[in-house]
Amino acid sequence: MAYLDQRTLPFETREERARTADDVVDAIRTLAVRGAPCIGVFAAYGVALVRRTLHDDAAFAQAAARIRVARPTAVNLAWAVDRVLASDDMLAEAHAIHREQEQVDAAIATHGLELIPQGARIITHCHTGGLATGGTGTALGVIVAAQRAGKRPRVYVDETRPLLQGARLTMLELQAAGVEALLQVDGAAGAAMAHEEIDLVIVGADRVARNGDTANKIGTYALAILASHHAIPFYVAAPRSSFDPVLQAGQDIAIEQRDAREVTAFRESAAAPESTRVFNPAFDVTPRHLVTAFVTERGVLRPPFPEAIDEVLRVS
Amino acid sequence: MAYLDQRTLPFETREERARTADDVVDAIRTLAVRGAPCIGVFAAYGVALVRRTLHDDAAFAQAAARIRVARPTAVNLAWAVDRVLASDDMLAEAHAIHREQEQVDAAIATHGLELIPQGARIITHCHTGGLATGGTGTALGVIVAAQRAGKRPRVYVDETRPLLQGARLTMLELQAAGVEALLQVDGAAGAAMAHEEIDLVIVGADRVARNGDTANKIGTYALAILASHHAIPFYVAAPRSSFDPVLQAGQDIAIEQRDAREVTAFRESAAAPESTRVFNPAFDVTPRHLVTAFVTERGVLRPPFPEAIDEVLRVS
Repeated sequence: MAYLDQRTLPFETREERARTADDVVDAIRTLAVRGAPCIGVFAAYGVALVRRTLHDDAAFAQAAARIRVARPTAVNLAWAVDRVLASDDMLAEAHAIHREQEQVDAAIATHGLELIPQGARIITHCHTGGLATGGTGTALGVIVAAQRAGKRPRVYVDETRPLLQGARLTMLELQAAGVEALLQVDGAAGAAMAHEEIDLVIVGADRVARNGDTANKIGTYALAILASHHAIPFYVAAPRSSFDPVLQAGQDIAIEQRDAREVTAFRESAAAPESTRVFNPAFDVTPRHLVTAFVTERGVLRPPFPEAIDEVLRVS
Repeated sequence: MAYLDQRTLPFETREERARTADDVVDAIRTLAVRGAPCIGVFAAYGVALVRRTLHDDAAFAQAAARIRVARPTAVNLAWAVDRVLASDDMLAEAHAIHREQEQVDAAIATHGLELIPQGARIITHCHTGGLATGGTGTALGVIVAAQRAGKRPRVYVDETRPLLQGARLTMLELQAAGVEALLQVDGAAGAAMAHEEIDLVIVGADRVARNGDTANKIGTYALAILASHHAIPFYVAAPRSSFDPVLQAGQDIAIEQRDAREVTAFRESAAAPESTRVFNPAFDVTPRHLVTAFVTERGVLRPPFPEAIDEVLRVS
């Protein structure tokens, strides 16, 4: 199974190939494949692929279980693996998940459009474009749809340390779509809100609990507090598959702590003295009271969120 | 005049030499010499040096004026240049400014110590240690004094993009002083406050207005809002020379916009697509109501700040 290594973009376009369950797990763990919906689609194809080569049922079950937990936070991963495992034709089901994601992204973009004023100034964090979903993207899909609708948004893009998905991937996709985009360090979001007449923040999600608490890329929680402080709407664009039907609240979401080298270096450049210890959670949890609305393929969800999320999960 | 190039630390110790006013201006502008108090000391010596080689009064006055405005935000720069220009023996005055800074730093550390509980967990931003002042530092001086007093603080260090002064310089000085330190990306400060039982934030300042509004490294304003949201004290450690006797409020502080390459690269590694535009203010302004107290060489200033700051400026 061929895939694009997102770690080297936009500097190098590297196509890799996953042949085994280990390859699939590694691609997800190293963030070669990333973005919650994209991880789901990739894992679905991965399980179907592994089934073709691993004929022993016990060995296959173990391999699928390892793929299912390759990363702990994005719920789309377990959701997609479970769907494929429960199907009669695994490859057909993986295709269906992929196709559905494209439709879901299109629906999110359509619903999100109503939230974007003409000439909106928008802050976004991390990367939520086509590379992250397999479709046209979630939060970034809304922004690109606004551009296509002639709304001419201007986007302030958080670079999103440590892995700079904002600088590398969001800038790439916004430039390709002809959207006016300014890159900023993550610490500049407060100054942007104070001085640049920001109209709204829109981000993606890796997992949303039943009550609306939202796990997303580290820095999202701070951005939500800043938005609240400046009375700026804070929107989360996420497909139904990012809503966890089991988890009641954010404090139960597992947060992955990642390797120190992500923080002490970037690509070939060291950033800190040797033997530096780090605090490096990959995600944080934004409590629901800081979220203005969710944009899903089923429409825009407004508070009270527990009821709205119940409704979305019920009609699946 | 020999100086240490702070841009390459801790990876390379590079001693440079300033011979002309242009050299002095360049060293300040490129951040080879940085940290508001350190810029003041360096500029003071720089003006004294230039006076020795530039005998024409008009040419000297012009050179000193250029040094005085090499960077717009740190008020210590103009303050130190004005002091040297008003003195009879410029080199002696530069020495005096340097010696005073050492005493000032020691007094700040002593006063700040009372704010640090036993085993305190502290967030700091940018770099405010000895390299930034010419003495023992401002905010970092307080932390190191707490370590020497047996308080065993644990410090969460914002890496401080774009130029990584936290990762490169603060980590270096904290490790040298034996202080427990964890490096974090700037976006992780919110998660640290939510989950790591942070007791306080302490930072430096580049310029404090008469009313207490404070300009400091980009990201400080966001950190102050996060601290307020979590009911965590937010302290600013700064010498009297960082308080601007003229400026009434923060909106009048000039904020330097710096080069795009600071953001589009990470040391030697590219971070974003070519032709990326940026929003890159070097500083932001924290309004006084987000500051719990100032730590100065004259003691800890509590609200109402205009009165407390008037008092400090009066007894100079």
